[in-house]
Parts: sequence; C-alpha cells; structure tokens
Amino acid sequence: MSGDGRAESANALLGEIAGVGADRARGGYSRHVFTTAEGELREWFGGAARARGLEVQVDRNANVWAWFGRPGPDAVVTGSHLDSVPGGGAYDGPLGVVSALAAFDLLRAQGFTPRRPLAIVVFAEEEGGRFGVPCLGSRLLTGTLAAERALGLRDGNGDTLADVARAAGHQPAHFGRDEETLGRIGTFVELHVEQGRGLVHLDAPIAVGSGIIPHGRWRFSFTGQGNHAGTTLMEDRRDPMIPAAEMVGAVRRSAAAVPEARATVGRLVPTPGGTNVIASRVDVWLDARLPEPGDVRELVAEITEDARAAAELEGCRVEVREESYEGAASFDAALRDRLRALLGDAPVLPTGAGHDAAVLARFVPTAMLYVRNPSGISHAPEEFADPADIDQGSADLARVLRSLAG
Amino acid sequence: MSGDGRAESANALLGEIAGVGADRARGGYSRHVFTTAEGELREWFGGAARARGLEVQVDRNANVWAWFGRPGPDAVVTGSHLDSVPGGGAYDGPLGVVSALAAFDLLRAQGFTPRRPLAIVVFAEEEGGRFGVPCLGSRLLTGTLAAERALGLRDGNGDTLADVARAAGHQPAHFGRDEETLGRIGTFVELHVEQGRGLVHLDAPIAVGSGIIPHGRWRFSFTGQGNHAGTTLMEDRRDPMIPAAEMVGAVRRSAAAVPEARATVGRLVPTPGGTNVIASRVDVWLDARLPEPGDVRELVAEITEDARAAAELEGCRVEVREESYEGAASFDAALRDRLRALLGDAPVLPTGAGHDAAVLARFVPTAMLYVRNPSGISHAPEEFADPADIDQGSADLARVLRSLAG
Repeated sequence: MSGDGRAESANALLGEIAGVGADRARGGYSRHVFTTAEGELREWFGGAARARGLEVQVDRNANVWAWFGRPGPDAVVTGSHLDSVPGGGAYDGPLGVVSALAAFDLLRAQGFTPRRPLAIVVFAEEEGGRFGVPCLGSRLLTGTLAAERALGLRDGNGDTLADVARAAGHQPAHFGRDEETLGRIGTFVELHVEQGRGLVHLDAPIAVGSGIIPHGRWRFSFTGQGNHAGTTLMEDRRDPMIPAAEMVGAVRRSAAAVPEARATVGRLVPTPGGTNVIASRVDVWLDARLPEPGDVRELVAEITEDARAAAELEGCRVEVREESYEGAASFDAALRDRLRALLGDAPVLPTGAGHDAAVLARFVPTAMLYVRNPSGISHAPEEFADPADIDQGSADLARVLRSLAG
Repeated sequence: MSGDGRAESANALLGEIAGVGADRARGGYSRHVFTTAEGELREWFGGAARARGLEVQVDRNANVWAWFGRPGPDAVVTGSHLDSVPGGGAYDGPLGVVSALAAFDLLRAQGFTPRRPLAIVVFAEEEGGRFGVPCLGSRLLTGTLAAERALGLRDGNGDTLADVARAAGHQPAHFGRDEETLGRIGTFVELHVEQGRGLVHLDAPIAVGSGIIPHGRWRFSFTGQGNHAGTTLMEDRRDPMIPAAEMVGAVRRSAAAVPEARATVGRLVPTPGGTNVIASRVDVWLDARLPEPGDVRELVAEITEDARAAAELEGCRVEVREESYEGAASFDAALRDRLRALLGDAPVLPTGAGHDAAVLARFVPTAMLYVRNPSGISHAPEEFADPADIDQGSADLARVLRSLAG
C-alpha cells in the first residue's frame, strides 16, 4: 500500500466522527442520507481516503468509493455505510468503514502490494431511515430496486428522493443499475458490529456470517374520520387509532406464535397528531423477518387479516403496501470457509439484520465479519463494541484482504 | 363607532386569511403559536383593527387587543383565537375574531356610540397545538397557570415557550397574571363555530352556551429497551409500543362504559421512531372529558391502572403526568338569559370543547354564542359553517354588543 497519511486505528477513526449527527432529543445518532450530518460524514470519509492516497469516486447512485490503484475489475471491496437509524448507535455502519481504513493502514505498514484492485465502499441509506427502503444504494446499484420507484420515495417532510438527491449535488437522472461499477466488484466483504449476543455466548471476538434471513417492510394506512376529541361521543367515532393499536397487539401475538419470527412496530404516525383531535389517519410500519422454511409473507397475511377485521369494526379502512422485501441471502460457502480457516476457525453466525452484503451476495461472492457486541443491543445508543475487539476486527479484516488480494 | 375602514362581512374577512398556514401534508390548517403562519395572522389582525380606527395592544402574555376608544375598565370584550390544532379547520378560532370585526363594522354603520369601552381580543395558543397546554394566553392572563411552569413548556422540537416567545419579540420575564388587563374586562362574549350537531338537530343557526364540561390532558410515557427489530427475539423484548397500544384499547373501553365520557388518544410518539427499531420510549397523550357529576380523574385513574398492568407485563415502566386540567365552567346565568331573550329565544347548548371563555368565566361574567356547523366535524378540514349562518352570527353578536355596551 502507499499514501502519505499516518496509520490510525479504527478506534481513533471512530473518535473523529463521534460528534457528528448526535441526536439530543432521542439520544444516540441520527445520520440520515443527504442531511447535514451525513454530508459531513461523506466529506470526512473522502478526506480520510485521500489522505491515504486513495482515489475517491461517487457512483451514479451516491455510493462513495475509495480506490487503491486502478478501479476494478475483479476488485476486492470492503466497506459498509455511515447512515444510521433515528437515534442509533455509534457502530452500526461506521465500524465497517473505519475498520476498512484501519486495515488499509495495516497493509500499508506491512508493505503489502495487492495483485487485485482494492476498494472501500460507503453505501447510501442502508438503514432506510429517511426514505423507508433499506439498502437503497446497493439496491439501486444492482438494479434490485427500480430507479423510478426509488426516486419517487418521500421522506417525513414529503420531499422526494429525487429532489433531495438533486439538492445534495447528485444527478437523479443517472440513478439506476450501474453495470460499470458493479462489474468492478470481484469479491465483497462487509465487517459489522454484531446485533445480538451470539459472540458473547461463544466467548469469541469475531465471527464469519452464514447468511441473512428474509426481511420485509409493510405500511398499514388506517383511515377514519378526524374530529374534535371533546365533542364527539364515543359511539359516533370512526377513530383509526383503535384498529392501529389492535394491529400492534396482533403483530406481537402472531410473531410470538412462530418460532424464530421477529415482527415489530417501531414507527406509528397519527395524522394530524393533535392531543385534542381524533386522528383521521394512522400509518403503521411493520418490520417482519422469519428464517426459512417459514414464510414471512404468510405471517404478514395473518396480521393483515386481523388489521382489516379491526378496521372494519371501527368503520375505518386499511390499505397495506409492501415497501420492501428481501429474500434469504446465503453468503458464498467457499469464501466463508476460507475466511473461517484464515481467522483461526472463527465461529459462523447467521443474522436477522439486513445488510448491503445481502444485496451484493446475489451478484458477487460476498462475506461478512461480525465484531462482538457485549450489550447485544443495536439500533440504540447502548450498542457497543470493546476497543480491543475493534482492533481485532481491523487486524482480521486486513488478513482477509491480504489473502484475497495478494 | 368610528374609523376609516370600509365595512366587511365575516365571510369576506375569512377569505382574506384563507391562504395562511394551509397544511399540505395533513390537509386543513396548522397555525401554531409563534410560527410564521400565526405571525402573519397576528399582523393581519393588527392591520384590520387599525384600519377600523382601533388601538392595537399586545398584553404581557402575547394576547392581542384592539380597543375602541379608551381601554377599560368595565369593557365589553369579544373575540376568540387565531391558532389552530394541527391540520385543523378554517373556523375554530378565526370565526370568533372575524365576526367581532364584522360586528364592529355593523355597529359603526348604525352610528352606534357605546357607553362602555369595547374591545376585541385574540388569545394566544388556545389549542395548545404547540406547547401542549390549551388556553395558554387566557390562563397566563388570569394566573390560572403559573408563568414559571408555562415558560418551561417545550414544543415538539424541544424549544421552550420562553425561548420561542423571546424569538417572536415578546418578553417572557413579563409573562404571568396581568391585573391591569384583567381589570379592564367587564364582560366577555366569545362567538365560536359549533363543534357538534346540536344546532343541526334543533334546526337553528345560533345558540347561547350554557357551560363547558371538565377536561384534562395526561401524558403517559412508557419506557422499555430500544433494540434491533431483526435480531431481538420476541421473548427477549421489552417493547414500550406493546403497553402503549394496550392503553389505547383501555381508553376506548373505559370511556365507552361511562355515559357522556369522551377519551381520546390522538397523539402517540414512539422514540426513536424507526421502522427497523424497537422503540425505547413511547409517549401517549390522553384527552379526557366527562360532565359532572361524573369524575374525569376517576376515569383516568382506571385507565392508568390498565396502563401500569400492561407495562409491567412487558417489563416496561410508565410515568403519568397531568398536563392540564380545567374543571366544569358554567357561564353567567343572568347574562345567558339576557342573550337568549335578545336573540329571539335562541337555544341553549352545553359543549365538550374547551374555550378561553371557560377560563375567563371564573373571573368575569362570560357568555358564548355558537354558529351552526352542518358537518358536526371540528378539528379537521371538514369543519364548516354556512355563509348565511356566519352573517347571522355577526349580526347577532352586534346586537349583543350593542345591548351590553349601549
């Protein structure tokens, strides 16, 4: 490796962005795509990459690439994302990016000269925290999501992705499947903080991923009759909050009855949302996941039936829309076994969390590394990784890159 | 009356503000205190009042006054408010203000010379749409709400009333009971759109108010453990959305079991509010009202018990805070009978809606006039009053003011 930048640990790099996008109201971080905070992180990453002599490029779908030497083909790519859920932790996303930079520093210190091109990627809007659809950048890049649909997505203010991307200096007309960029990727390896306590139970710092369980998001829109909370008698109401609340209960009951199923309502928005106003509309987002051979859509169909019955009972209506769906992803078995052997028989773990790696896995050999999370908590400020485990993760990632690109 | 402005009908005046504060996302109007839209309405009112030769004053609590002649004492005051609930209708509030201006025009056209001082008042933040406590301006003026508590109230962005008021050019240090202004009011009459179908059933355009039923607002804060929606198994969750949804059901059941009770959850905010995030906290606002001899606090105690049980079952906690409470208000019986007789034996109606008139009624003889609302709907875009009924309302208000001040 070459470059003028001094070597930095992943822990030090995390420290550099610790102040960006802190969310005073919710706690943790809110770093949504194309916000000021996320823009600051993009700039920070560009600066860190250039200081290492890497060539920085933004692809057609607003994903950022840092290339060591000539871009592609058959490149070994590592990276993750810098955006967060609302009020998220410090590690989900950034850990994979800073570990990639730190691994490059380690390889450079070792005087390593890769035979295959090497790159770090930062994918846009992995969490779907602003426009609702997760892995937006990788889905657009691979054509898994049509650009036309993506560009019409709206954020909480009603602004479309097209408008927001344009304002941030991107060209929405160029969004969509990007053969050139995709064709450069030979292998993809994503390092990520673990989002559970698998490694705690195994008493190990690093695991290799086996695959990702099917995952979808559905939006239930209940509509009734908005009215005055003080003058409308109970028997005269058609209050969409009633079936929306019933649905939350149905989600819990249905998911609890199916082993390994996870179904969540974490976002619920009444309109207009006034204390003294019966809502006219309540939107409820359902996040549901279930390992095969279970069928997550069957679980959602059961919840939908309960939601419809509850809406009808209140004289309300409900519309259900599948906002995203990602089937099971299995990471490349040969690659997984190679990494496992390389990392001293590292344990292999499945996950219920979605990642850009799951999107990429359908197109190129893909692997994941997980770093132990003592709290087991993720998507919340309590998310954590021990500094020693983080250093171990960068060292292991460097070993993997060296083996793959050497 | 005097002044150079030409006479305008209440309907024409409503037309002048029809474009201010329209809410594209929710429908209807969002005109919250100290926002740009509400500031525009304050300016518009000041201009309309000055054009009529009235002297405009802003009192210590940001309520706006337009005086005909010398301010107080023993003034006959009419008026209402210009702020709205989120996504509210065009009439709740503004109708009382434009009808007051139109009534002054009618009296001036009649060459009427009042013996008592006359004024129009626009109260601040009647709906509590921004800071949660309704009738903020009249409560501060009368000392019903301590300035210290009010100034610490926060809006949805976490900004305090003190900061927001200061930014809007007011002096928070002067907020609080205002003896001088209160001492000027001899009689208060508020005209308001009806928020129900009482007048539709009676086939009459205008009613006189009898009183207002007790009304409170409570905030239930459920806390649990925020976590990842995909990796946290159902049995490992402490999800505050579950007891929050249970509570919505309990509110409906408890209120439906008590004749004449109204209890509503129209506002519910999960934190952080991400689709793929188990919430760490859910705030639920309860609006509850019950005519005496019922006890609305007893109803809320029952709901609280259910909420606590549901929280405990999920390993969550709940904190309950009474944000506001207004006991029953009875309008002055002699004044009511006098107005009724004056308006050709107009019907007398109670209401479940809160008004600044209910706050004032404890301090000065107070009356209300209601204008028929064919939809029966309020706090929603469908709120309506027929132009002919609106003209009737201004004419009746002019008759009332003439009788009281003549």
